[in-house]
Amino acid sequence: MPTISSRGAHMPPSPIRKLVPYAEAAKKRGTKVYHLNIGQPDIITPPSIMDAVKHTDIKVLEYSHSAGFEHYRKKLVEYYGRNDIYVNHNQIIVTTGGSEAILFAIMSCLDAGDEIIIPEPFYANYNGFSTSAGVTVVPIPSTIDEGFALPSIDAFEKAVTSRTKAIMICNPNNPTGYLYSQQELDVLKDICLRHDLFLFSDEAYREFCYDGRKHISALSLEGLEQHAILLDTISKRYSACGGRIGAFVTKNQQVLDTVMKFAQARLSPPTFAQILGEAAVDLPSDYFDEVHAEYTSRRDLLVKRLQAMPGVKCPLPGGAFYAIAQLPVKDSEKFCQWLLEDFSYNGATVMMAPAAGFYATKGQGLTEVRLAYVLNTEEINGAMDCLAEALKQYKN
Amino acid sequence: MPTISSRGAHMPPSPIRKLVPYAEAAKKRGTKVYHLNIGQPDIITPPSIMDAVKHTDIKVLEYSHSAGFEHYRKKLVEYYGRNDIYVNHNQIIVTTGGSEAILFAIMSCLDAGDEIIIPEPFYANYNGFSTSAGVTVVPIPSTIDEGFALPSIDAFEKAVTSRTKAIMICNPNNPTGYLYSQQELDVLKDICLRHDLFLFSDEAYREFCYDGRKHISALSLEGLEQHAILLDTISKRYSACGGRIGAFVTKNQQVLDTVMKFAQARLSPPTFAQILGEAAVDLPSDYFDEVHAEYTSRRDLLVKRLQAMPGVKCPLPGGAFYAIAQLPVKDSEKFCQWLLEDFSYNGATVMMAPAAGFYATKGQGLTEVRLAYVLNTEEINGAMDCLAEALKQYKN
Repeated sequence: MPTISSRGAHMPPSPIRKLVPYAEAAKKRGTKVYHLNIGQPDIITPPSIMDAVKHTDIKVLEYSHSAGFEHYRKKLVEYYGRNDIYVNHNQIIVTTGGSEAILFAIMSCLDAGDEIIIPEPFYANYNGFSTSAGVTVVPIPSTIDEGFALPSIDAFEKAVTSRTKAIMICNPNNPTGYLYSQQELDVLKDICLRHDLFLFSDEAYREFCYDGRKHISALSLEGLEQHAILLDTISKRYSACGGRIGAFVTKNQQVLDTVMKFAQARLSPPTFAQILGEAAVDLPSDYFDEVHAEYTSRRDLLVKRLQAMPGVKCPLPGGAFYAIAQLPVKDSEKFCQWLLEDFSYNGATVMMAPAAGFYATKGQGLTEVRLAYVLNTEEINGAMDCLAEALKQYKN
Repeated sequence: MPTISSRGAHMPPSPIRKLVPYAEAAKKRGTKVYHLNIGQPDIITPPSIMDAVKHTDIKVLEYSHSAGFEHYRKKLVEYYGRNDIYVNHNQIIVTTGGSEAILFAIMSCLDAGDEIIIPEPFYANYNGFSTSAGVTVVPIPSTIDEGFALPSIDAFEKAVTSRTKAIMICNPNNPTGYLYSQQELDVLKDICLRHDLFLFSDEAYREFCYDGRKHISALSLEGLEQHAILLDTISKRYSACGGRIGAFVTKNQQVLDTVMKFAQARLSPPTFAQILGEAAVDLPSDYFDEVHAEYTSRRDLLVKRLQAMPGVKCPLPGGAFYAIAQLPVKDSEKFCQWLLEDFSYNGATVMMAPAAGFYATKGQGLTEVRLAYVLNTEEINGAMDCLAEALKQYKN
């Protein structure tokens, strides 16, 4: 029998799926499971953008341009302009989800053996895409005690080697919810310029910033035009995860030319969701107000409830829809499994993502969990009732 | 300024796009361009499958399962069963176009430095995906004089080294239109078993077989169950290229487990086109009869017209919707460019793909072009009128 590649063998399994069989078993027993484990928003996809797909008049479902429909890219120029990101449509390559934008960035800018610095904890699939490309992830720690702020400039300096080609951030951050400040972005700019590194900035959660704070894009950092690469997606913004439309955006022409070769190899991004994405740019400007208010109240409730539990630590996230909490348990993965296998309260239990899967450093995050506040406040209350009771009952 | 990867630098540009600017210029001058250069069918996408998308009742456009909707995969089991391919739904992973199935196969089965044997000429993007993965394509020649039949078993034996991990075929073949016989597939089976190689079989054009011949899938070769990997797509089958839905199918569980890790990293295939693909399985059984009759008459006309031109050689393709023709020119790329830049006849010209881009061996295919018969017979006649006149006028 022929064997798989060692690349395939080293490909990390998804950390958020490990517990899925336990959740399914719990449901089969009739236990309600509150899903705080995955970033799948429950918000209704705006009906007007679904209608754009339903009313399409396509006769032949042809390939689109490999960079995406030109009319969609021109529409995206409007969207980005409203967000203080000034690019033209030739600086945008439409991708199959944010996932493909990440893959294209790594493939186009890094060779096998090259290194990418990422503050940990980080979105676990950065690891998977790096592994596909033979690229080494060099994690530097952000900590719950500092609210997951950007690591110090010293930590970056120490991590840079002759093989370092890029720094990757997610802003606002998945899984920590941290929103980087202008000062922190200036630190990143400084390091990237000094060592001539790309800055990959995953801005999937751009609209999800709280407490009146404003998102600052890596693409708007003056002087970093040739280094900054924006990785984007409509998935969270419009609750359109299944569409699989994202974008790769940069002002670096050599990188654009290179990414286009990868984009042409896979022919085109999906047509239907491009239509959806184009319609989304025309959503009324108050669309996000309601969404925003909803997520703010969810966040406030979740964090208040967590902070009220003895031994639980949870910094208030400034953005996205995730929070990381430290729990008074020895091993959060065992605890999460126990919640699904052996626990219920009022006929329900809660599913969370053990945070160790978001750290590249072995042994980190063992007492932490990531919670995605993608449920309404009533359900968050139900989930927190379960968690509070579980922490009382659980024997480490 | 940071530099792109050498992987990115080596990524081959798409051979069928090089001439696009010349075609655009011709159109600007008012010249009609017959597009025989790209495999974009003109056939209407069946309205009933488009309707399935339009009538969807989705409230939240969620991620689907990373392997694709289970109900779609179960439906595909029916489709494959009708084509004598007996698999269960867990042996199918829905991909983002056939492109992603190719990428997953290479990533999961081959490491950087490994070799894949491919009879040339071949679909150019096999080269691109191999380059992304650091994999070396080892071409072995199929020739126009032998009608692009499978190279001899000796040619394969000579090409196998300790780094060879797989053989890739496209059946029926893009770009040659060749349909492999049972005997040829048995040769491939023999080599794969003897050297323990994967057989990647791209069967995008399964339904496009002519002259009463039947397609034989690599997955139906007895004894090759652990080696055979079927790469599939709905793009050509249902004229649904823009949907971006394909499939990775194998009975090898270790390969399935590995591909699932890559599939989970990119989260899910596009939802809308999965709905389209599911509806397509229920198309009436005579759906392909009309399509088939149309392509047969196009093929017959195209080949008859080509064979009637002095100095032109074109074997009759047994499948797909491509033909390769040898022209009485020194350099088919220059000729194709001249057709677009300097020639018109009755206000029109013809665009073809220079075949050199489908060969990995430098200097091969220089006098050949690929023609995709994706236009109706009237337009094929118009295109052939242009080509016949052009060959008279062209000075090598």
